[in-house]
Amino acid sequence: MMTDYTLIFELIGTVAFAISGASVGLRSRSDLFGVLALGIVTATGGGVIRDLVLGVIPPSGFTDPIYVITAAVSSAIVFAVAYLKSRHPSNLNVENWKQLLLVMDSIGLGIFTVVGVHSAISKYGTGNGFLCVFSGLVTGVGGGLLRDMMVDRLPDIFRKHVYAVASIIGAEVCLILCRLNLASFSIAAGAAVIVVVRVLAAHFQWNLPRIEQ
Amino acid sequence: MMTDYTLIFELIGTVAFAISGASVGLRSRSDLFGVLALGIVTATGGGVIRDLVLGVIPPSGFTDPIYVITAAVSSAIVFAVAYLKSRHPSNLNVENWKQLLLVMDSIGLGIFTVVGVHSAISKYGTGNGFLCVFSGLVTGVGGGLLRDMMVDRLPDIFRKHVYAVASIIGAEVCLILCRLNLASFSIAAGAAVIVVVRVLAAHFQWNLPRIEQ
Amino acid sequence: MMTDYTLIFELIGTVAFAISGASVGLRSRSDLFGVLALGIVTATGGGVIRDLVLGVIPPSGFTDPIYVITAAVSSAIVFAVAYLKSRHPSNLNVENWKQLLLVMDSIGLGIFTVVGVHSAISKYGTGNGFLCVFSGLVTGVGGGLLRDMMVDRLPDIFRKHVYAVASIIGAEVCLILCRLNLASFSIAAGAAVIVVVRVLAAHFQWNLPRIEQ
Repeated sequence: MMTDYTLIFELIGTVAFAISGASVGLRSRSDLFGVLALGIVTATGGGVIRDLVLGVIPPSGFTDPIYVITAAVSSAIVFAVAYLKSRHPSNLNVENWKQLLLVMDSIGLGIFTVVGVHSAISKYGTGNGFLCVFSGLVTGVGGGLLRDMMVDRLPDIFRKHVYAVASIIGAEVCLILCRLNLASFSIAAGAAVIVVVRVLAAHFQWNLPRIEQ
Repeated sequence: MMTDYTLIFELIGTVAFAISGASVGLRSRSDLFGVLALGIVTATGGGVIRDLVLGVIPPSGFTDPIYVITAAVSSAIVFAVAYLKSRHPSNLNVENWKQLLLVMDSIGLGIFTVVGVHSAISKYGTGNGFLCVFSGLVTGVGGGLLRDMMVDRLPDIFRKHVYAVASIIGAEVCLILCRLNLASFSIAAGAAVIVVVRVLAAHFQWNLPRIEQ
Repeated sequence: MMTDYTLIFELIGTVAFAISGASVGLRSRSDLFGVLALGIVTATGGGVIRDLVLGVIPPSGFTDPIYVITAAVSSAIVFAVAYLKSRHPSNLNVENWKQLLLVMDSIGLGIFTVVGVHSAISKYGTGNGFLCVFSGLVTGVGGGLLRDMMVDRLPDIFRKHVYAVASIIGAEVCLILCRLNLASFSIAAGAAVIVVVRVLAAHFQWNLPRIEQ
């Protein structure tokens, strides 16, 4: 059984996405609850959508409080840090913070994508590769998409650094490794591919073409 | 059986939330159908999400027309009143209207929250308290959240008067009473707690902390 | 069996809605992936919501890649045409393009509505007419609603040319024909009614009343 292994990964992804969601919440006019809610939605939204789609009812985010609690605590820490910073302005390097956020978000995307692929496989097998990859993509990008829909900004995945493309590539890698009976290796490898693609894309400013109108 | 009792409560909540949704629709550029649709979404959205999460398929909002019809009629009345008012401007007290809206919205939140707690209990028992409270919260705030996502404003629950916190407190009260075998009392008590917390919070301007940036 | 017949209709609707979604994507700041994603969401979103509501798990959009691939290719063609046009400005008649888009969108609405009615009937029979019509409406308008929520604009269905009303009328026509054992005729007839109502409404500028505030 690799359940424990998966849970630890999931909690790391939950922390990473909660920080990303709470940071977006701070920039909107949300209060403390709003910041926590955005952190929780970002961290659990993708998994809830995936569970609804795969027929895992009630979704694990609703039955096991560990995800919501982890996300809430992470978001509260973000809020507390921002509060202290607003009272004691320091010359914190904004560029470093942005890079940390990028890495956190990439780790979240990587972990949730491979967890989503594994969820589909554990319920329906590796036969329908499209379903497995789609499940990974929805798990990876669903939370951030809900977050952006709630705070009324164009979803990041529509315009940023091959975000969803990285998720699809990693999901494919994960699926192929599972089909080769390398399931235990597939989680780390798939997530790593996603983080590397995302970080490289951000560093070299890879962007998909866009048409100015 | 408390079904009839619950249905009457649900219809009161439906009217309250439909009025709230239709009022938001009037302030956007929606036409008559948009106003009705926003009233219906606000009144039934939370219940539909809850039913999807709890595995009540198809959701009761889709199988029993009474909720949609009640919400549509309530919204149409709001539209008619606004139409008459726009042609015959009166010195209607805006402050009174706001207070009425607050009370309606609080009643809707109170009723839908406890109905959501009871839905989870009737399907999965009181064992998983987290699921019961979460089900109540989603039922209570889901419709308003969808409404705000549709008209592109920051969801009220992210910034207003301990909105979601009131729902969680009432859901806990409702759950505890159910565990004490006081189910028939839990609906009125849980809903009342929520209405009181909300009205007090609005009156005394209780707000959660927020960080200006 | 009318499955093949239905599939061809569904693919026509998928192309029509993907073009509509991709066109909205071009007007936002989305990159190539964003344009594809909006085309795919618009074309498959209504069907996915309907399948979740009716209990078709996983939704067919997730198990059968033909819808996503059709929508992606259609959206990519829209992107390519827009790219060429941006480099070689021509005196393309904008009015013609708008009319084409209206017709495409109406065809998508018509086809998806009747497909949604048939999905409900094939799972739950014609007994609950409300469920059948609601299923048709959600299938028809769900994708466009998600699209508009994602790009932060007031959903078209709240303000445009009796959009949802056309869908409801066509769904009723389709349901009545099915109850009269004219199922094979009901798809074409229901969809045609919707297209005609929509095009007439746009041409004669039929709009539902709205209150200016």
